[in-house]
Amino acid sequence: MSANQQIILETIARTGEAEMIEVSQKISPYIHKTPVMTSRLLNEISGADLYFKCENFQRMGAFKMRGALNAVLSLTEEEKANGVVTHSSGNFAQALSLAAQSLGVPAYIIMPSDAPRVKIEAAKSYGGQVLLCNPTLADRQATANALSKEKKAKFIHPSDDWDVIMGNSTAASELLAEVPELEILIAPVGGGGLLAGTALAGTRRKDPCLIFGGEPLAVDDAYRSLKSGKIEGNATTNTLADGLKTQLGEWNFPVLQQTVTEIITVTEEEIVEAMRLIWERMKIIIEPSCAVPFAAVLKQPEYFSNRKVGIILSGGNVDLSKLPFK
Amino acid sequence: MSANQQIILETIARTGEAEMIEVSQKISPYIHKTPVMTSRLLNEISGADLYFKCENFQRMGAFKMRGALNAVLSLTEEEKANGVVTHSSGNFAQALSLAAQSLGVPAYIIMPSDAPRVKIEAAKSYGGQVLLCNPTLADRQATANALSKEKKAKFIHPSDDWDVIMGNSTAASELLAEVPELEILIAPVGGGGLLAGTALAGTRRKDPCLIFGGEPLAVDDAYRSLKSGKIEGNATTNTLADGLKTQLGEWNFPVLQQTVTEIITVTEEEIVEAMRLIWERMKIIIEPSCAVPFAAVLKQPEYFSNRKVGIILSGGNVDLSKLPFK
Repeated sequence: MSANQQIILETIARTGEAEMIEVSQKISPYIHKTPVMTSRLLNEISGADLYFKCENFQRMGAFKMRGALNAVLSLTEEEKANGVVTHSSGNFAQALSLAAQSLGVPAYIIMPSDAPRVKIEAAKSYGGQVLLCNPTLADRQATANALSKEKKAKFIHPSDDWDVIMGNSTAASELLAEVPELEILIAPVGGGGLLAGTALAGTRRKDPCLIFGGEPLAVDDAYRSLKSGKIEGNATTNTLADGLKTQLGEWNFPVLQQTVTEIITVTEEEIVEAMRLIWERMKIIIEPSCAVPFAAVLKQPEYFSNRKVGIILSGGNVDLSKLPFK
Repeated sequence: MSANQQIILETIARTGEAEMIEVSQKISPYIHKTPVMTSRLLNEISGADLYFKCENFQRMGAFKMRGALNAVLSLTEEEKANGVVTHSSGNFAQALSLAAQSLGVPAYIIMPSDAPRVKIEAAKSYGGQVLLCNPTLADRQATANALSKEKKAKFIHPSDDWDVIMGNSTAASELLAEVPELEILIAPVGGGGLLAGTALAGTRRKDPCLIFGGEPLAVDDAYRSLKSGKIEGNATTNTLADGLKTQLGEWNFPVLQQTVTEIITVTEEEIVEAMRLIWERMKIIIEPSCAVPFAAVLKQPEYFSNRKVGIILSGGNVDLSKLPFK
């Protein structure tokens, strides 16, 4: 085991409810306390007792705001003056831009040149300095590294960063504070930052919850990683769930190994059907990634039937002119 | 003035806050207390301080549930045994079906044969007996009259019925109870039942609100009726706002004459733009009819700028495969 792995395992081991409460208190002035919604119809359809934590109503439209804020709030004064840098094609670009702006910290956001124009504009509109790079992971990282060096700005990874994971844990903490009798928590898994935070909140308590992840079959790297015991990649990323294409990292993988009962994989059709049910029955807008855990609940009712299940609805940023409904 | 008109005016005149509180209490066990939402971004865009009463989250997806319930709850025991009948191509068909089912009352729902299959199925699924008729207003009324006679069932008009109007008033009453400092209320106007109820709730109180209506330009009969002083019709009904195609009636028209400051008409493009803003920024699903008041607020900011404005979001039943976004 490397020294770094040792630090990671020790950090995970010593993190308890008290640390997460502290993070909740730290970020609460800057976030929305999002509602928990229920639906009689979706309970009937699923056979479970479902509580949806609506992070689609979070500032900038996704839970990512929580992790980004905690990361920026955890900087030293000197680090705050130098600013932060990240690379993201999606919600974390907007989240870090807005979090940094809220706290008067410079933010450098590396985005691939093929990112949707609307997401690039959104990241800019929140005040971040957006720099485009070639659309490869290698170039994203190289550009971020170079910029980080030049500006002395701290690199914040969108999902594989302990402060980000701890910030993400607050969505589940709020849900559990409102509905303490939950028996199961489920969240989508892409980079693993949301599921790891959710798992920490759900297991570091007096009555621990069972933890499940939902993942698109097309990018089932987390499913395979938990089977093989090492971080796996995806050969292709053909999924509607564009927030879930990334792979696990060294901080969140061990959390998932220690806490997750099962990753349930779902097809693209199952994602669209789950998304349609939530749009039609709950009248709320969620992005495809966000429908994945509900699709998983519908797919494997043997885990959820007659149980009280908390579902983290991760975000609601969709392009209305490109919807998957027929 | 006819004897009937005399009764109507007297009924309106003697209706105060106490009557509306009584109706609220009567229907509250059977409805959702819907949330009031706000949006910093939409406040910035509109220059007003907006409070959205989210009846898109109401049971069966629209405020219509309130009026239908109050109408069924106001029946005598004998009338309950005989049942109720209505004609509607839209949300009231579902609302009366569900309200009657909730109270064990037979419901006969006349729907035009060209109504969307999904709406016919929804009305059936709530337990109502759906009868199809030819898609003309004359045939709808004739079929309803014949059935009402045959079954001794009481006819409930979707918008021009005092119990329905009083039931509808409870959405605005709840909103005002939560945000008493509101200065203006605005609702969409089609048949006029929602706007009349909203107007009663907003004006029969210690600090009366100004009342505005939003109406599609393509079916601007309410706008013209208030100018001419008599109920006007629409030559054509080419609007996306399919809930607002009907015309005013003898119960709600005098309420609007007495209370409404202005009906603001909006184009189809303005409706789609307002609908898109609410979907994208608030992450909630509203139907086109429901976007009309917000479109009106954006169109005539001189009325709303820096004022506290309550907007009734009337419903969220849309066909996801036929959305107007490009």
